[in-house]
Amino acid sequence: MSARTLAELAGTFALVLYGDGDRRIDGVGTLEAAGDSQLAFLANPKYRGQLAQTHAAAVVASADVLADAPCAVLVSRNPYADFARIAALFEPRPARTPGIHASAVVDPQAQVAASAHIGPCVVIAAGATVGDGAVVGAHSYVGEDCHVGAACHLVARVTLVTRVRLGARVLVHPGAVLGADGFGLAMDRGRWLKVPQLGGVVVGDDCEIGANTTIDRGALGDTVLEEDVRLDNQIQIAHNVRIGAHTAMAGCAAVAGSARIGRYCLIGGAAGVLGHLEICDKVTITAMSLVTHSIREPGEYSSGTPLMDNRAWRRSAVRFKQLDELSRKLLQRDP
Amino acid sequence: MSARTLAELAGTFALVLYGDGDRRIDGVGTLEAAGDSQLAFLANPKYRGQLAQTHAAAVVASADVLADAPCAVLVSRNPYADFARIAALFEPRPARTPGIHASAVVDPQAQVAASAHIGPCVVIAAGATVGDGAVVGAHSYVGEDCHVGAACHLVARVTLVTRVRLGARVLVHPGAVLGADGFGLAMDRGRWLKVPQLGGVVVGDDCEIGANTTIDRGALGDTVLEEDVRLDNQIQIAHNVRIGAHTAMAGCAAVAGSARIGRYCLIGGAAGVLGHLEICDKVTITAMSLVTHSIREPGEYSSGTPLMDNRAWRRSAVRFKQLDELSRKLLQRDP
Amino acid sequence: MSARTLAELAGTFALVLYGDGDRRIDGVGTLEAAGDSQLAFLANPKYRGQLAQTHAAAVVASADVLADAPCAVLVSRNPYADFARIAALFEPRPARTPGIHASAVVDPQAQVAASAHIGPCVVIAAGATVGDGAVVGAHSYVGEDCHVGAACHLVARVTLVTRVRLGARVLVHPGAVLGADGFGLAMDRGRWLKVPQLGGVVVGDDCEIGANTTIDRGALGDTVLEEDVRLDNQIQIAHNVRIGAHTAMAGCAAVAGSARIGRYCLIGGAAGVLGHLEICDKVTITAMSLVTHSIREPGEYSSGTPLMDNRAWRRSAVRFKQLDELSRKLLQRDP
Repeated sequence: MSARTLAELAGTFALVLYGDGDRRIDGVGTLEAAGDSQLAFLANPKYRGQLAQTHAAAVVASADVLADAPCAVLVSRNPYADFARIAALFEPRPARTPGIHASAVVDPQAQVAASAHIGPCVVIAAGATVGDGAVVGAHSYVGEDCHVGAACHLVARVTLVTRVRLGARVLVHPGAVLGADGFGLAMDRGRWLKVPQLGGVVVGDDCEIGANTTIDRGALGDTVLEEDVRLDNQIQIAHNVRIGAHTAMAGCAAVAGSARIGRYCLIGGAAGVLGHLEICDKVTITAMSLVTHSIREPGEYSSGTPLMDNRAWRRSAVRFKQLDELSRKLLQRDP
Repeated sequence: MSARTLAELAGTFALVLYGDGDRRIDGVGTLEAAGDSQLAFLANPKYRGQLAQTHAAAVVASADVLADAPCAVLVSRNPYADFARIAALFEPRPARTPGIHASAVVDPQAQVAASAHIGPCVVIAAGATVGDGAVVGAHSYVGEDCHVGAACHLVARVTLVTRVRLGARVLVHPGAVLGADGFGLAMDRGRWLKVPQLGGVVVGDDCEIGANTTIDRGALGDTVLEEDVRLDNQIQIAHNVRIGAHTAMAGCAAVAGSARIGRYCLIGGAAGVLGHLEICDKVTITAMSLVTHSIREPGEYSSGTPLMDNRAWRRSAVRFKQLDELSRKLLQRDP
Repeated sequence: MSARTLAELAGTFALVLYGDGDRRIDGVGTLEAAGDSQLAFLANPKYRGQLAQTHAAAVVASADVLADAPCAVLVSRNPYADFARIAALFEPRPARTPGIHASAVVDPQAQVAASAHIGPCVVIAAGATVGDGAVVGAHSYVGEDCHVGAACHLVARVTLVTRVRLGARVLVHPGAVLGADGFGLAMDRGRWLKVPQLGGVVVGDDCEIGANTTIDRGALGDTVLEEDVRLDNQIQIAHNVRIGAHTAMAGCAAVAGSARIGRYCLIGGAAGVLGHLEICDKVTITAMSLVTHSIREPGEYSSGTPLMDNRAWRRSAVRFKQLDELSRKLLQRDP
């Protein structure tokens, strides 16, 4: 977190610098708020108007802003990504040194790498393994037959119930529950009978799983996240779902059992996917939409109605109920 | 988890076997994936086409498939339920022996049955009781005046805040919070005033409560789940709600305060129920629908619009806003 | 929790009593359920019909019910608020005495006020501070550079990840996660790159945060709740959101990144707010509505369609897909 010169940053991240290479940068900020020792960025053209007034020492931006910038520019083809890389230099990261905290409870039949960090009040069950350099934060639980891959980071209070396998470098935020029973029930003589959930959860390398997100284990076979899947907070992934690599889902989205989502999909906040559907690669679902049938063409899909003043909405809502009748009336006269 | 012969399974579960009774079964699987020492099942006619190609040693199915099955058949009137019973034989269950883990913190004024299992880092408060054979998993919290019934299973990290009474054999998954304050507020001179939540939560026998589900305690009187209610993950049950026996709710559903839901209802994923409504027995609400009025007739109910390509959806959405105007125009000409 | 006379209650809360001042009250209840030593209230005219049959010893109500009340009346201009104040006298509150439980893990570089209560299995990290009279309940985690203000109450199992500042008297329910990483990602050569989340979370005085609610920390700058904001359970607040004072949000609502919500707003259950929008003061959003554009006028706003019998709904839903075509047909003939 020490300061870097602009020349150092340009060198480290292979960017072309326009401006004074000796200028020292000790932090990052927005175009609006960055101070004169900080670095800002311009990625979204919508914010271009803020460039002229920025007090930042420098901006990461594309070459076409050079004429307008009142400060140094680190020229990038992907300013948001390069800014993210530089910002990581200035992120305070609490030390998580190797070793097992005295208050942690590690079963003798668990295997924990010597380079792993096991935090306070962590519980690790029989048959669990924790890989090299992994961090298992305070109050986390690694259940029977769970595997935490190398360099994984369970921030705190993460629960892996049973038969969960995390690949390398998986980041899991607090309150996430992986590997709980899928919701399997059979109605039998007027009562529910629980269907055993014998599968597990497999999470690929470089996935991120948000706070209070839940991923159930499979009934028969596994629930699978391929590599580099990014899940925001409070997402629900039911048993036997498969999510393709590089797909990202925003907060509160929910996917029902055995649905298959392709690669490079973007699932909006609070969107839903019904069970046993397939969504192909490169599909975008807008926020709060419900996917009720399989999707075979890449593109953007939506459901719902627009936000309206409540009185006007009530009038439209009443008409929605009459819509078939109204349509028939119209088509009778003019088919 | 040791192998069983088909004859043993037929005998134990009162099923008629067609095929070699000496064949040994050591696990279960889907029609598609089961190997030649495994048992599969056929309950949904949609999967009947997979029967001819199965490599399973046997299937649990109805009698009408006998002609087509390439393997032994355990004939059942409810194949999914009988399969569930058999599958339970092959479920690995970690041992949870009676006793209190050394790291658990049990208040001297709590009562814990000698046959109960209290896991690592569990906290049990004054006035709490834990019944015979109950399992209270790691990181769980049993608060003041909470009662965990006989043979309950709190998997791990379950929080019972205060005045929560679980019947017998209740299964609660990690992250669930029962008995937190209901959301009661009075506006008073421009500020919110908290309304004390003096009631509790009563959960009937054989209920199941999913991961990260929340059930608030009542304001005056209790929030009640009758017996055999099944709640999936991330469900929100507000104060003073009552849910009838054998009702099941899928993930992310939410029920607002004082609503009453009948028996044998099925509430779809992410569906919502407004406060102070009544839903009669045997009502199905489809996924992401919002119940805005009481329902007095059994049946299936829905709201929302279908998923569409985003461009087409935008055109329909604009027309939804004009719907009353358009309808008036139509009806003026042809009332 | 000892009994009080009606005269005492009238005196303490500055209410005018009609009836016997010596009558002793030992609890509270609804008009329907209160017994003859209990106090009830009548705030919603809808319940006025229950007044004549109440067995309560007294009711808190407005003066206009005096003629109909079969019992004593404590006359109030805001009966619900005054009832809430009185009910608080009868709420059992478990003792939370000052001191640090032996099982808690407090970093030597944390600062905990002598008057604070630190419960069992709590973990407090380096650089954290806990203010006077604060209660940090069992299984809570107060991370690096987090500040718990005076008289805050973290009920149990609350997680403050990093750079979270709680004002005074903030109440946080179990399972809440504050200060986890915002969901910031840049796509870079076919893979997601994580954008560091360098900001924090600032929560004003007298806020309440529900069970399993998540509030992410800001990317650059903070996520902010002004004073007296009230969040129900399972709400998701993304990074850099700002919520104005006295705004209340019902369960399962979700607000996307950088949205700004005004003061005195009411956000209904499971409602959503898209990112980077502004909602002015005194806006009500009905349950499960999606806010897709900024709102500049106070009022009530909605989206969605009404609940219908599924068969009728299917017919309307099909017509929704044809709505633009139908409208054009109509307007062609009668523009």
